[in-house]
Amino acid sequence: MINKLQAITGASNVLTGADVGRYSHDFTHSYNWTPLAVVRPGSTTEVAEIVKLANETGTPVVPVSGNTGLAGGAQAEGAIMVSLERMNRIREIRPNARLAIVEAGAILSDIRSAVEDHGLVFPLTFGAQGSAMIGGNLATNAGGSNVLRYGNTRDLTLGIEVVLPDGSVMDLMSELHKDNSGYNLKHLMIGSEGTLGIITGAVLKLMPKPRAYATAMVAAPSLDGALTLLNRLQEATGGAVEAFEFMPRSYVEQHLKVVKGSREPFDAPHDVNILVEVGATSPRDTEPGPDGRTPVSSHLETVLEELFTHGDVLDAVVAQNEAQRREMWARREAAAEVTLSRPPVQNNDIAVPLDKVATFLERADAMLTRIDPGAQPMVVSHLGDGNVHYAIWPKTQDPDTMNRLMEGVEGIVLELGGSFSAEHGIGTTKLPSMARRKNKVAMAAMRAIKAALDPNGIMNPGKVLPKD
Amino acid sequence: MINKLQAITGASNVLTGADVGRYSHDFTHSYNWTPLAVVRPGSTTEVAEIVKLANETGTPVVPVSGNTGLAGGAQAEGAIMVSLERMNRIREIRPNARLAIVEAGAILSDIRSAVEDHGLVFPLTFGAQGSAMIGGNLATNAGGSNVLRYGNTRDLTLGIEVVLPDGSVMDLMSELHKDNSGYNLKHLMIGSEGTLGIITGAVLKLMPKPRAYATAMVAAPSLDGALTLLNRLQEATGGAVEAFEFMPRSYVEQHLKVVKGSREPFDAPHDVNILVEVGATSPRDTEPGPDGRTPVSSHLETVLEELFTHGDVLDAVVAQNEAQRREMWARREAAAEVTLSRPPVQNNDIAVPLDKVATFLERADAMLTRIDPGAQPMVVSHLGDGNVHYAIWPKTQDPDTMNRLMEGVEGIVLELGGSFSAEHGIGTTKLPSMARRKNKVAMAAMRAIKAALDPNGIMNPGKVLPKD
Repeated sequence: MINKLQAITGASNVLTGADVGRYSHDFTHSYNWTPLAVVRPGSTTEVAEIVKLANETGTPVVPVSGNTGLAGGAQAEGAIMVSLERMNRIREIRPNARLAIVEAGAILSDIRSAVEDHGLVFPLTFGAQGSAMIGGNLATNAGGSNVLRYGNTRDLTLGIEVVLPDGSVMDLMSELHKDNSGYNLKHLMIGSEGTLGIITGAVLKLMPKPRAYATAMVAAPSLDGALTLLNRLQEATGGAVEAFEFMPRSYVEQHLKVVKGSREPFDAPHDVNILVEVGATSPRDTEPGPDGRTPVSSHLETVLEELFTHGDVLDAVVAQNEAQRREMWARREAAAEVTLSRPPVQNNDIAVPLDKVATFLERADAMLTRIDPGAQPMVVSHLGDGNVHYAIWPKTQDPDTMNRLMEGVEGIVLELGGSFSAEHGIGTTKLPSMARRKNKVAMAAMRAIKAALDPNGIMNPGKVLPKD
Repeated sequence: MINKLQAITGASNVLTGADVGRYSHDFTHSYNWTPLAVVRPGSTTEVAEIVKLANETGTPVVPVSGNTGLAGGAQAEGAIMVSLERMNRIREIRPNARLAIVEAGAILSDIRSAVEDHGLVFPLTFGAQGSAMIGGNLATNAGGSNVLRYGNTRDLTLGIEVVLPDGSVMDLMSELHKDNSGYNLKHLMIGSEGTLGIITGAVLKLMPKPRAYATAMVAAPSLDGALTLLNRLQEATGGAVEAFEFMPRSYVEQHLKVVKGSREPFDAPHDVNILVEVGATSPRDTEPGPDGRTPVSSHLETVLEELFTHGDVLDAVVAQNEAQRREMWARREAAAEVTLSRPPVQNNDIAVPLDKVATFLERADAMLTRIDPGAQPMVVSHLGDGNVHYAIWPKTQDPDTMNRLMEGVEGIVLELGGSFSAEHGIGTTKLPSMARRKNKVAMAAMRAIKAALDPNGIMNPGKVLPKD
């Protein structure tokens, strides 16, 4: 096997033994494994040959790109790991057609930098963007902070190229905005976490890069009030709200404790603290006035003042300069630090309908108190997407209680029509939740599709679909 | 069979013999057929029972809703036609969550009217919206004039409910903006034209309804220039361009000939005539000034004047009132009348990458002259989506020439990375194109999925996938 792999990619691109070290765990070190070999193909043809070989020999294949996933999706015990890292070219940027053509191993922040030179933005953005690669973003349909305006990864993708489990290359590198010619295999592959094939390339949509941002901290009277506020802001800005992030009082307090030099967002404490950001591309919004402020900031201030007079806003601070904007974002971006400041932590990445976030939080907090009195929630939320990162600091900390808390969260989520995995995917971490909670008819359809496209079960086996 | 169907829906909802008349042809009368029976279920449970019966007896099932399709997708010779017309309820509108929950037989224009009462819009819009039903829109992933801003039907849909070929009900009625829990079956079902199941309900995304429009006719120096113009307008308006429709000089001239009382859009004739519309929701854009004009119109005028001084615009007229706006739209909406004014017509609904529309038109026109000297193209295009309705008025009119022209168009489309079916779907009309042109690996994957989900081949057989 190793010889055959070496014949495909050259010996230097087949790693075994001690050389696989950095490929044998996820980045949080929650999972460890020993792959059969790590192969670093340099082209789609090489990926196809590797997969063909694996399929013929019944060897498991696990694709990996930036290895920044949070769900154990790249575990590869005894498998051939196919690392896309050498396929990192940004093949083409066509500014007029607003698209970029990239290989799967291109690092997200590199793609973002390359298109910025053309005044454009590829708006996918999240913490790990300096090492995450687009192939993994596509495999997991990554989300992040700007989904509200631009959508998830799938919404930012015109086309993909995929090596299927039999080693055939499926060229769906469409540059089209409209194409109704058969089943949408692009959307089937995106988010399938490497279990239906290996994504090797993509055509990405680009947007005009905002030339100015208006950013504010806003205190809302309630979560329902915050949703009204979001809808009014969307109307007032023509849908230009890029981020709408919720931090409850408990989060703000913990942030003050944990991060040196951090400050209160408002003069008085509030329960519902919102970070809102509006992006502007139009010269009428972006050209600074005599006072150095941009019209988009002044406009946001006016809108917030109006909402204040109607009671939809309790307090608001609009960033007057980039430093103030950075301070606002720093509070939100400290989420990992804040959440992990009191281990152990149980992370729950859930989504509910926009108008049910308040109900979810009430019920979840009550459930905590019931199951583990003294347990504490630590919450931060992409409120505009209904996505809540509901971390729990348990009091009891035994595995049984931890499990009951997770099941408790899932139960409430399901009752409210939500999802137990909003943006991190299933991998292996969420397999028990899939088994417990996923619609049975949908699960049967997924299994049928998996069996049809990967009859030998070689592609990232044991991920996404729990054992029958 | 008929008795069993009657037992499911009641005798009055099973039509046979002379009663199936209006269900036995498509709305253009291009196709005629005789169904075994037409059944009109009143609930998802009834749909499921019908499909289960059909699956057990190996009887073909063809779903139909508004029957406004253009590709022969509802042909039902000898099949049970399942008409969704009785399932036409708009179950719920939740303005704060920006969503509507509807049954598959709800008529598109009824949905649009119902949500307008809440200051919202369901932005799917096209000619047949007064009779087209949402189930068919979802089955074909309908497009239309506002795709540029809001996307195709799939982009406007949070969740669906589907009866699968075995009669099981797949509840994907998600109200979520983020959900990464397994394969995306919603996107697989949408656009599958009833061959993988019957869509019975949907959760639709709603948007703030524009309270003012700025509409203009613009003459651009070239098609490439028009694309630059679109990109500048998107920047200047923060992505608020709702429509960007291209009409060449030949279209404008034919419109003048065919439609009584129609007028030239500009003082002088131009080759590249663009209808552009910007939608505004913000009070700063929509509140009329002392002259009765809205700020959004004045802003569009300013932007166009700037582009004029740079040579990106040759001439422009901004509508000063609703009557002028209607006149601009009437020219575009007369497309069917203009195109059909000289039968026979060969319609080609194609898409190419945004920056290749000009190349497509040059090559297609040259191909016409080569194959059928004297043949004439009649073109109108959703230019902002790269979607060209390339109608041909053949000179020779024999079937062989007609076929060679269609193949010629397809060949050019494929060379440019385009699609032979942009928004109308495959149905039966485009089966030869699928067989000739669709990527073979993708086709094999589609067949595998079809066989996995519909092993008895009962769901809308003979559509989308050509015979192997």
